[in-house]
Amino acid sequence: MISNRNQVTEMILAAKVSKGIKWSEVSEKIGLSKEWTTAACLGQMTLDKKQAETVGALFGLPDEAVAWLQIVPYKGSLPTAVPTDPLIYRWYEIVSVYGTTIKELIHEEFGDGIMSAIDFSMDIQRKADPKGDRVNVVLSGKFLPYKTY
Amino acid sequence: MISNRNQVTEMILAAKVSKGIKWSEVSEKIGLSKEWTTAACLGQMTLDKKQAETVGALFGLPDEAVAWLQIVPYKGSLPTAVPTDPLIYRWYEIVSVYGTTIKELIHEEFGDGIMSAIDFSMDIQRKADPKGDRVNVVLSGKFLPYKTY
Amino acid sequence: MISNRNQVTEMILAAKVSKGIKWSEVSEKIGLSKEWTTAACLGQMTLDKKQAETVGALFGLPDEAVAWLQIVPYKGSLPTAVPTDPLIYRWYEIVSVYGTTIKELIHEEFGDGIMSAIDFSMDIQRKADPKGDRVNVVLSGKFLPYKTY
Amino acid sequence: MISNRNQVTEMILAAKVSKGIKWSEVSEKIGLSKEWTTAACLGQMTLDKKQAETVGALFGLPDEAVAWLQIVPYKGSLPTAVPTDPLIYRWYEIVSVYGTTIKELIHEEFGDGIMSAIDFSMDIQRKADPKGDRVNVVLSGKFLPYKTY
Amino acid sequence: MISNRNQVTEMILAAKVSKGIKWSEVSEKIGLSKEWTTAACLGQMTLDKKQAETVGALFGLPDEAVAWLQIVPYKGSLPTAVPTDPLIYRWYEIVSVYGTTIKELIHEEFGDGIMSAIDFSMDIQRKADPKGDRVNVVLSGKFLPYKTY
Amino acid sequence: MISNRNQVTEMILAAKVSKGIKWSEVSEKIGLSKEWTTAACLGQMTLDKKQAETVGALFGLPDEAVAWLQIVPYKGSLPTAVPTDPLIYRWYEIVSVYGTTIKELIHEEFGDGIMSAIDFSMDIQRKADPKGDRVNVVLSGKFLPYKTY
Amino acid sequence: MISNRNQVTEMILAAKVSKGIKWSEVSEKIGLSKEWTTAACLGQMTLDKKQAETVGALFGLPDEAVAWLQIVPYKGSLPTAVPTDPLIYRWYEIVSVYGTTIKELIHEEFGDGIMSAIDFSMDIQRKADPKGDRVNVVLSGKFLPYKTY
Amino acid sequence: MISNRNQVTEMILAAKVSKGIKWSEVSEKIGLSKEWTTAACLGQMTLDKKQAETVGALFGLPDEAVAWLQIVPYKGSLPTAVPTDPLIYRWYEIVSVYGTTIKELIHEEFGDGIMSAIDFSMDIQRKADPKGDRVNVVLSGKFLPYKTY
Amino acid sequence: MISNRNQVTEMILAAKVSKGIKWSEVSEKIGLSKEWTTAACLGQMTLDKKQAETVGALFGLPDEAVAWLQIVPYKGSLPTAVPTDPLIYRWYEIVSVYGTTIKELIHEEFGDGIMSAIDFSMDIQRKADPKGDRVNVVLSGKFLPYKTY
Amino acid sequence: MISNRNQVTEMILAAKVSKGIKWSEVSEKIGLSKEWTTAACLGQMTLDKKQAETVGALFGLPDEAVAWLQIVPYKGSLPTAVPTDPLIYRWYEIVSVYGTTIKELIHEEFGDGIMSAIDFSMDIQRKADPKGDRVNVVLSGKFLPYKTY
Repeated sequence: MISNRNQVTEMILAAKVSKGIKWSEVSEKIGLSKEWTTAACLGQMTLDKKQAETVGALFGLPDEAVAWLQIVPYKGSLPTAVPTDPLIYRWYEIVSVYGTTIKELIHEEFGDGIMSAIDFSMDIQRKADPKGDRVNVVLSGKFLPYKTY
Repeated sequence: MISNRNQVTEMILAAKVSKGIKWSEVSEKIGLSKEWTTAACLGQMTLDKKQAETVGALFGLPDEAVAWLQIVPYKGSLPTAVPTDPLIYRWYEIVSVYGTTIKELIHEEFGDGIMSAIDFSMDIQRKADPKGDRVNVVLSGKFLPYKTY
Repeated sequence: MISNRNQVTEMILAAKVSKGIKWSEVSEKIGLSKEWTTAACLGQMTLDKKQAETVGALFGLPDEAVAWLQIVPYKGSLPTAVPTDPLIYRWYEIVSVYGTTIKELIHEEFGDGIMSAIDFSMDIQRKADPKGDRVNVVLSGKFLPYKTY
Repeated sequence: MISNRNQVTEMILAAKVSKGIKWSEVSEKIGLSKEWTTAACLGQMTLDKKQAETVGALFGLPDEAVAWLQIVPYKGSLPTAVPTDPLIYRWYEIVSVYGTTIKELIHEEFGDGIMSAIDFSMDIQRKADPKGDRVNVVLSGKFLPYKTY
Repeated sequence: MISNRNQVTEMILAAKVSKGIKWSEVSEKIGLSKEWTTAACLGQMTLDKKQAETVGALFGLPDEAVAWLQIVPYKGSLPTAVPTDPLIYRWYEIVSVYGTTIKELIHEEFGDGIMSAIDFSMDIQRKADPKGDRVNVVLSGKFLPYKTY
Repeated sequence: MISNRNQVTEMILAAKVSKGIKWSEVSEKIGLSKEWTTAACLGQMTLDKKQAETVGALFGLPDEAVAWLQIVPYKGSLPTAVPTDPLIYRWYEIVSVYGTTIKELIHEEFGDGIMSAIDFSMDIQRKADPKGDRVNVVLSGKFLPYKTY
Repeated sequence: MISNRNQVTEMILAAKVSKGIKWSEVSEKIGLSKEWTTAACLGQMTLDKKQAETVGALFGLPDEAVAWLQIVPYKGSLPTAVPTDPLIYRWYEIVSVYGTTIKELIHEEFGDGIMSAIDFSMDIQRKADPKGDRVNVVLSGKFLPYKTY
Repeated sequence: MISNRNQVTEMILAAKVSKGIKWSEVSEKIGLSKEWTTAACLGQMTLDKKQAETVGALFGLPDEAVAWLQIVPYKGSLPTAVPTDPLIYRWYEIVSVYGTTIKELIHEEFGDGIMSAIDFSMDIQRKADPKGDRVNVVLSGKFLPYKTY
Repeated sequence: MISNRNQVTEMILAAKVSKGIKWSEVSEKIGLSKEWTTAACLGQMTLDKKQAETVGALFGLPDEAVAWLQIVPYKGSLPTAVPTDPLIYRWYEIVSVYGTTIKELIHEEFGDGIMSAIDFSMDIQRKADPKGDRVNVVLSGKFLPYKTY
Repeated sequence: MISNRNQVTEMILAAKVSKGIKWSEVSEKIGLSKEWTTAACLGQMTLDKKQAETVGALFGLPDEAVAWLQIVPYKGSLPTAVPTDPLIYRWYEIVSVYGTTIKELIHEEFGDGIMSAIDFSMDIQRKADPKGDRVNVVLSGKFLPYKTY
């Protein structure tokens, strides 16, 4: 009996390690970006029937798991409010150190509102650099103005 | 008596509102990006003597405040571990929902290590879009591999 | 020196009590709903110049405070993550008890996405009822589907 | 051995996904609103014998589970005090941003007291809108005045 | 400038100590129970005009404070979620140790619902006992059944 | 292997539901109040040999469980510091709203000390009322004065 | 205006440092143990009129402060739930490491109940030891058995 | 497979209840104080080979468990930072109420430093008292002065 | 099915105890420092194929576990934000007491930036001392200056 | 009136910035290490009379502040349990990632016990390195074995 999406994510992770599958391969099979695809496999996005079947075939999942991939998951991928993992913490730190800066600059440009985390995309790339390669990330979110009523 | 950087940040914010100064103007005067400049004025970065005097003149700060701008601050700009402000929360949400995805993809490309939040820059731009303009943010951080010893 | 919006909210609350002003009166003067108007006076929304001047005149605020009303505030009106006030707690309880229900039903109708809290309005009304009058609240938020990319 | 309601909720969720049942279908069978019915199936409400048997038959639950559906559950559907799921968080955010506003307006209309979360109903509807369909939610709670004694 | 009820509570406490007033005396002057009266003076209840003026006269409060006593306060009298004061902690402990017992017994008698904390009264009395006097507290709250809809 | 009292409580709850036993019946069999008896079955009190055997027979518990009922348990019945269940929360709210009031009135009557939660009893009764029946609870705790030394 | 006991504690601490008073001297003047006396001066115990006047004279406190010393304080002397100060943390650590041991041994000797922290005394002494002097602390608390009813 | 000390502690507790063993008996067999022995059995101390074998024989533990008893455990015996169990809470309360007092008096006698919780012993005894027997606890910890360098 | 690194760490710890393996032996086999090797076995570092196979052979791990050792783990080895184990707590205390000192002195020497915890090594040694042997730890981290842009 | 050490620390920090004093200069004047001296000035250590007067003269402190420097402070230099400042966080991260490793290795070498944070010294040095200078920190703490009794 599978009663939540976490169980499916654990199946995917176990199969990924034992079969040596890469996220970029999954992404290619699905035909979507590696960012969306990985998030989906990690239990954060909802797949349509065809995507779910592709993922199911790739990782050798049972039908019940394939059905769960098509259900909207309870989102949030971290075990604690402040993440302990150093790579993820650096992102938390960026929000902590630059949070008020980001707020000020978006408001200066757009006025009151937010940058959407739903109508949103992310692209992570390696950028070669003689002083040490860099991680380049582009975040794109629709600006949503606060409604006056 | 000024005994911490917060007091200087409050002076800057008070002066900014009453004088109607824009961050982009400060940035131009300093000759650095608006992102670094704003973070510095909000108490997250250290200014050199010339930068501090420019900021001091612009906002009408006393000498003591100008001296404090040149001291490395205790960083972290948010009053709570999980931010309540909707704009900043969306960034926290991105870390929460995409945290494990970002981790997987950086490791898949670079191996074990982190994306630096210190050798780091950020660029926030408006991107026109007929369906609603977007906030485009480019984050660039040096990849630092875990050392084996 | 006013260095944050809270100070302006406190001025408004102090004046409201000593002058006996009602939120509905402020709302009428501003020409917007009592919900948006009250939230704005309580430091959660940004006023335009004319609205800020109207509010300033009504509550007898200094020019500096009127300037602050036009600055996007750091939002979040509660002192603790779980509110202690019984009226506000009941709303937290609705989210706690019905949270997964709301999630299931919106997803069943719309698929994956959220109900916006930005492109959002709220209307609070008394509904007469022989068994005891009721508070009727209509919340309206645009559905935003998760983007696939 | 079933020793708490959570185990029953997990059985229902597992069966819902594998059988492809919709909450609206359950609601029709039970003859009550989809909001109350879903909350009940998710472990937040108490069913009477007939309702429990209907739910048991629909989801193929064992007798022990049907008995548990008739026991008042320990309520609260969220794993953390501040929810991580974006859809549910938006509701938490509404309480955080509008909490003091809701309090002020209910007190202005009714005096001291609360809006009941027990003598309470909720109705969630899609509202077509050319700019993007909206989620319309009507909350109705009896006003309960604070007793003086 | 008085901008919240806490300031009024502090004035009352300061005056109570320096003037040596007893809660029972205030209660007699107000003509209500000592429990409601004390809670009101400690910032948890709303007074009507006459009650507020009586309290104001007794404690020598300024007019602005008397006005604030007539405003519905933000309730919750404790500085931390788990109280440190031993007397108040014992009550928290009763909820912690007996919480599920109280829940079971009220549901066994009344079915699903709650004991109201709004349509509620409390009476605290000394009960003489040769083995040591006892504190006897009677709590009375209306039972509110969960609504089915 | 039973290694803590929680496992016994779960056995009791499972048996209670499947056998349809009432707490009042257990209380009668034990010959003590329904409040103490229920708390004991829910893992908060220690039973003597005869009481444990009676409970064991009633719920069909194995000998090992009967032995555990006679061991002093680690007390505290709630999964979180602030309870999410609405019925239990109302009691937490009473402590939060009336905590300082209770403290003031007990001290006014008795001086410095506490109301014992150990030399303590509780009685929960239905009180008929034409405006809606009420839950009446009598708490009785010995007053313990702070020792001076 | 003095509105809480903390203000009095701060006055005492300020005077203690500037006048170079020792707790043992205060204890002698009061005629009670240094443990009770210190706790009282630090805002945890209630003094009678004579004791309060003695303390007031010793530290040069105003009449209002002397009155506050006779009011039962809101107890709890630490700024955080887990103390950061190393000396006090060691005591927290003793509770953390030995907590279940203390519980087991008191129950083995006395049955179910607690060691009172109210009918309680403490004695702290230096014990000479060639390997390094030791702090010897004797805690004495009345055993209070859980009441059966 | 035993992968942590907790599993061994659970085996000991289960055996203790089913076999009716007393801590004082274990202590006698080990030849050390009942305090150290109990703490060791509860997973807080490290046993040597002979002690571990004695404990293993007494409680009927497998060899793997006997090996784990000789491994230094991850210490801390409480499930929450603030303990819910009333007996253990009273000790937490002593630290909370008397924490600053203990600090002041040890510093007044010894200067800056701490009372060790490592070079530490504890002795718990019943002390007969006509007004009710008392729990007498002697704590002895070496004073460790802060090093200047 | 192994679905996370923790399961592998538990296998290693179980095997270590039952086989009596020492970290220094593992370190020798791997050919790296005992600090890095232990951290890797405890689930904090990523092993290459050869290292993983060596560890697998030593502890008798299944192939799936050996595969997991080569996957970058979710880091963070402690169950709570403030560690309860006394040895680890002392390190937390050093950060708490000396945190601001370390910050001041690194900034005085190097300017704004951090000491890397990634390009980092640690060496733990026993240092004989007639007054009691000491633990000597050398931490070495690359200084990373904050980037100006 | 100075009522706690924090006020003295703030005076020192304010004077340090306005006078441009370096910690190394203070250290030289005091004749102790820069680590101990800085910690003392930041409110974590106790100065003797001569040291306090030297610090007082250097920073221009009033007599009352000089007296406070000689009082043992309530230690702990960080505003939150998990530090937000990136430099200090890296140290917290070392404890989080390497905590169990440090524990294992010290126990493997010394048996059960701790590394003292009291009989402790720290030395922070710049170590030139062609790939980027490093921060080298030597921590030295006496090993304290757990006492058996």
